[in-house]
Amino acid sequence: MIKEYIFGKPFETYAVVDRTGIITEVANEDVAKRIGFKKDEADRALSPYGGITWDDSEYVMTYAVDMGKDDIVYGLGENIRGINKRGWIYESKCSDDPIHDEFKSSLYGAHNFIMMSGEKVYGLFIDYPGRVIWDIGYSHINKMQVLVCSENFKLYVINSEVADKKEQYRDIIKQFRKMIGQSYVAPRWAFGFQQSRWGYQNQGDIEAVVENYRKNNIPIDAVYMDIDYMERFKDFTIDSEKFPAFEKFVSKMKKQHIHLVPIIDAGVKIEEGYDTYEEGVKKNYFCKEEDGNNFVAGVWPGRVHFPDFLNAQARDWFGNGYKVLLDAGIDGFWNDMNEPALFYSEKHLKEAFDEIETYKDKNLDIDTFFRLGNIVRGLGNNLGDYKSFYHRATQPEGEMLVRHDHVHNIYGYNMTRAASDAFKRLVPHKNILMFSRASYIGMHRYGGIWTGDNYSWWSHILLLLKMLPSLNMCGFMYIGADMGGFGGNVTEDLLMRWTELSMFVPLMRNHAAAGTRNQELYRFTDTEAFARLVNIRYALIPYIYSEYMKAVENNDMMYIPLSFEYPCDKYAVNAEDQMLVGESIMIAPVYTQNATGRYVYLPENMTMVRIRAVNDYELTECKAGHHYVDVALDEVVFFIREGHALPLAGSGQYVDDIDVGEVTLLRAEGSNADYELIWD
Amino acid sequence: MIKEYIFGKPFETYAVVDRTGIITEVANEDVAKRIGFKKDEADRALSPYGGITWDDSEYVMTYAVDMGKDDIVYGLGENIRGINKRGWIYESKCSDDPIHDEFKSSLYGAHNFIMMSGEKVYGLFIDYPGRVIWDIGYSHINKMQVLVCSENFKLYVINSEVADKKEQYRDIIKQFRKMIGQSYVAPRWAFGFQQSRWGYQNQGDIEAVVENYRKNNIPIDAVYMDIDYMERFKDFTIDSEKFPAFEKFVSKMKKQHIHLVPIIDAGVKIEEGYDTYEEGVKKNYFCKEEDGNNFVAGVWPGRVHFPDFLNAQARDWFGNGYKVLLDAGIDGFWNDMNEPALFYSEKHLKEAFDEIETYKDKNLDIDTFFRLGNIVRGLGNNLGDYKSFYHRATQPEGEMLVRHDHVHNIYGYNMTRAASDAFKRLVPHKNILMFSRASYIGMHRYGGIWTGDNYSWWSHILLLLKMLPSLNMCGFMYIGADMGGFGGNVTEDLLMRWTELSMFVPLMRNHAAAGTRNQELYRFTDTEAFARLVNIRYALIPYIYSEYMKAVENNDMMYIPLSFEYPCDKYAVNAEDQMLVGESIMIAPVYTQNATGRYVYLPENMTMVRIRAVNDYELTECKAGHHYVDVALDEVVFFIREGHALPLAGSGQYVDDIDVGEVTLLRAEGSNADYELIWD
Repeated sequence: MIKEYIFGKPFETYAVVDRTGIITEVANEDVAKRIGFKKDEADRALSPYGGITWDDSEYVMTYAVDMGKDDIVYGLGENIRGINKRGWIYESKCSDDPIHDEFKSSLYGAHNFIMMSGEKVYGLFIDYPGRVIWDIGYSHINKMQVLVCSENFKLYVINSEVADKKEQYRDIIKQFRKMIGQSYVAPRWAFGFQQSRWGYQNQGDIEAVVENYRKNNIPIDAVYMDIDYMERFKDFTIDSEKFPAFEKFVSKMKKQHIHLVPIIDAGVKIEEGYDTYEEGVKKNYFCKEEDGNNFVAGVWPGRVHFPDFLNAQARDWFGNGYKVLLDAGIDGFWNDMNEPALFYSEKHLKEAFDEIETYKDKNLDIDTFFRLGNIVRGLGNNLGDYKSFYHRATQPEGEMLVRHDHVHNIYGYNMTRAASDAFKRLVPHKNILMFSRASYIGMHRYGGIWTGDNYSWWSHILLLLKMLPSLNMCGFMYIGADMGGFGGNVTEDLLMRWTELSMFVPLMRNHAAAGTRNQELYRFTDTEAFARLVNIRYALIPYIYSEYMKAVENNDMMYIPLSFEYPCDKYAVNAEDQMLVGESIMIAPVYTQNATGRYVYLPENMTMVRIRAVNDYELTECKAGHHYVDVALDEVVFFIREGHALPLAGSGQYVDDIDVGEVTLLRAEGSNADYELIWD
Repeated sequence: MIKEYIFGKPFETYAVVDRTGIITEVANEDVAKRIGFKKDEADRALSPYGGITWDDSEYVMTYAVDMGKDDIVYGLGENIRGINKRGWIYESKCSDDPIHDEFKSSLYGAHNFIMMSGEKVYGLFIDYPGRVIWDIGYSHINKMQVLVCSENFKLYVINSEVADKKEQYRDIIKQFRKMIGQSYVAPRWAFGFQQSRWGYQNQGDIEAVVENYRKNNIPIDAVYMDIDYMERFKDFTIDSEKFPAFEKFVSKMKKQHIHLVPIIDAGVKIEEGYDTYEEGVKKNYFCKEEDGNNFVAGVWPGRVHFPDFLNAQARDWFGNGYKVLLDAGIDGFWNDMNEPALFYSEKHLKEAFDEIETYKDKNLDIDTFFRLGNIVRGLGNNLGDYKSFYHRATQPEGEMLVRHDHVHNIYGYNMTRAASDAFKRLVPHKNILMFSRASYIGMHRYGGIWTGDNYSWWSHILLLLKMLPSLNMCGFMYIGADMGGFGGNVTEDLLMRWTELSMFVPLMRNHAAAGTRNQELYRFTDTEAFARLVNIRYALIPYIYSEYMKAVENNDMMYIPLSFEYPCDKYAVNAEDQMLVGESIMIAPVYTQNATGRYVYLPENMTMVRIRAVNDYELTECKAGHHYVDVALDEVVFFIREGHALPLAGSGQYVDDIDVGEVTLLRAEGSNADYELIWD
């Protein structure tokens, strides 16, 4: 059962699309009090808050609830920390920040959905596109306080009538997922291995990558084109020196079963003669400052304008921009920098230079020197800048002027919606790969996401694992992290362990930043091991794709915390580093350097699969309980659930090369469990 | 057996003080080749290197060795990553950098000692005070390459004749420790709990802290005075507005059994009329630029000079500075910012301002905008600045002019030596607490270290644990990390888990940075639990102090990796998150948020101690093997070794209050194991 509480006059985010069975109440003071909301009286004695710029005047409504010692809070989609979100303070604010450490409070997405598992089990979705703070046991270890910076928002409380706790969890998730609409379905080739690097400069670089992968028998389906393919970072352009015959090149690659996937940035370069810029200006499709001038921010090309993606006409216009690439044969895109990331605003930058000048020739001490650093650091993604521009948002009742910070979290979402709508118009019979960096609940209908600019850190293997279920809860099904890490320098063992997790994730993309160590899979000592591992991935694709499709169709999760499936098993309830993937298997990846194995908890009897290559594996029956499992660096260990079977195909050098006619069913000895494959 | 190989004309660091039994060879080309050293031909195909500024011309000599798949490399003292250092590249360069994440290559110390455990087991100490790079399986997963940026250094290779592997490890460590001299012994009160915060402004703040601890029955022995106690950050001054009668205040605190521990910074403020500054200038005791002018850097007070700690007269002079505080009754100090940290150099800052000016009113794009950030970020701890000043180092053959970067790693060491020598001169009958941030091997004779400006991160609990044995290997016995984390905002559960590890560590100090959440132990919901935990610490102090004293006297380790004690047990060999503390116990702290327990490996039968308060505990006999152990947030679980006993005293509100007459011996049922207490 879903109850909707309407506070004030909410902005329509289009997060909720299926209103079947929703019971609506307009929240007057009595109602607000009953559900635990009140005009903000949050206890802030324990400020400051981690990573959050605190402005008391902004927080208007607070939802406060006491938590039992063992209550668990699931959710918040793309975020740091655990599957259990307790013990930190999070901010829903799409943020371009590559340092995903424990101290952060936001990543690129803003996903205001949690499920509380305590005396009562219920889901809570706050549909508000501005700032929401989730203080989940940070200020007080046993209190949750949710602060909303507005009097205008919708709150959804989802309860389940089902008695069984296990069914309750899934029922609440399914109700929520149904309400927000079915998830985007990625094309099947996008489940193949994909290679990316910010640094491939031209078609020669890309061809060399493909050649190396093919030569080493490492399957691959796609190569990405990061910002350097464009003419000076201008959207919908192709640098003709680097790609002298782009369309031919796309077609040549396709013959080798390689899809090229270019990046599209949110900001449009300010440059006379550049058609996208000129048309945007002419038709008033860019975000504006209070005085009516187009807002000027700095991103890759320097000064840009931001398309007003909240405006339906602007969306149509920007969406049409993809046509030039679609026409060239491109069938996949990633939308980036759409939080929107801004290095600086023109206005703020001027002020910064003026202030810096006042420090010249002074004795810079503790205060003034740190201030100097803060001036420069404070230029990027500045809240003041987000408060200085406006949208002409298309709302059910017509066009509405709204300041960016109040709708910040749906900007990237609407960029991706623009692209997706355009694909339906322009290439209605094609399934285009689309994923985004920034997102909000609702965007899952238009594309997937990758988890942004992570690092070559061991902790980021585990972070990926922990995010998978919470992303699923919010409808994001085509998901993945930059394998090997985007920033920083990878080591061979890190990349190998990461490969052993990413092989179970829909988006398996190796991506790295310019200036970091080369991390294509053929760059290390044991290329043969990488080849074996990626071949195992391809043998698993029929399973991964089938489970993905089933989860999408049933509004269900593909990555399931053990606590959801075994809610009365105290070890399962607290398991944060292993999980079910689909109906048949449990994974427990190694994420610690120099580890030669790990502890695994089996909530029930399972069949252990130890696999080194598609044709080199053993099955071992294991009893429920705690186990220490040896896992060599170049092998993968996972578990098949009792009564279930795992289909293993014969690999292939690209997805269409996989022969599902030759599937082996892995299952417990003597089991006759079957498996339903989805493979059109 | 220790072999010393002398390359060129090494700078004398005084790291090695006991030459008994050392066999010396002067390393000509033949010798160099034999021991694996050669003129640098390191394979650098896989640059860039993590966090290291690479200048090919600097690296002169390389020691290269192949590693077997299962070889383990121990050592490098204060550092990031594991007990096993494989899989990363480290740089010996004392660094002021608070972000101790996986990606860094240096912390505050430079400890060039490793022990290789492979087909052969041997110790390796490179006595060179400039840059040394340890590429331990980074460029090639199975190669170690050590790069020394000089032709002048000493190499020590330590072998053991003992056949048994377990004895071999300890024998090698003891040989090395004997050679570098006995470790500093801290006063006993310094094993009590200590409270610090950058932010206590005056005596009222300190009194309030003490009152709160005493009121809540949380034992405490010391409060720290961070930089704000000084007059505008000038060494050896006390702000008389904040502390109007300092000597009286010190004495008042001492009556309450509280020791005050002020900070001393390396840089001396440039200010006419300030005696330390004026005397240093007059007597030429500051580091100089090439042209003979005193080098000007920026630190807390703004412009400072750096005392030339490598010069014996300058050391004496600076050491005498502590007298004003000793005279006031102070009996403990911490030396800070002595890498030396520099925010900027005067010269470099001027250039930065000039370059920033050229960017004004330009279109700042990907290249220029990032450059702007880099200009400001690059000001601090800049290698170019370290290359721009000189020491008049006192060497056996007389005074020697040496550029700072060639001796960078012994600067902090010699600041602490200056202090320690002064204490012996000025207060010969007193044992003064002294520890330092920067260090080099040899400094362990003069003081302890704390592990610098860590963060309120869960990962930093584990990092502390992993550093304990490698610090011991290098002679650092009085050690500890800022409990609860220095930077960032702590949570109650993080602080509690951290307390449960720090209670086993000599320096148990809660310290936090200005602007972060208050983290004194009485600031949270469960003050009573913190009180119970710190009382357990006090009950354990007789054991911790005894084991510390034994380890110091025997040149032995107090924190022992399981791999050292059980070298033939494959699970013990790879254990990175549990270890022996002294002869009687094994600890296995919980370091994961929301965890309700953890896995523990017992290499032999042990007695589990589950303790909630000094008088509230149970002993359980456990069999060797893998265990999952429940550990509630407010309790501690550790293990007593078979045939050993743990003395538990009756706690106390300060160390001198502990009654060792009332010791209970915890040991296995039926055991009559005894324990030798060291408590004068």
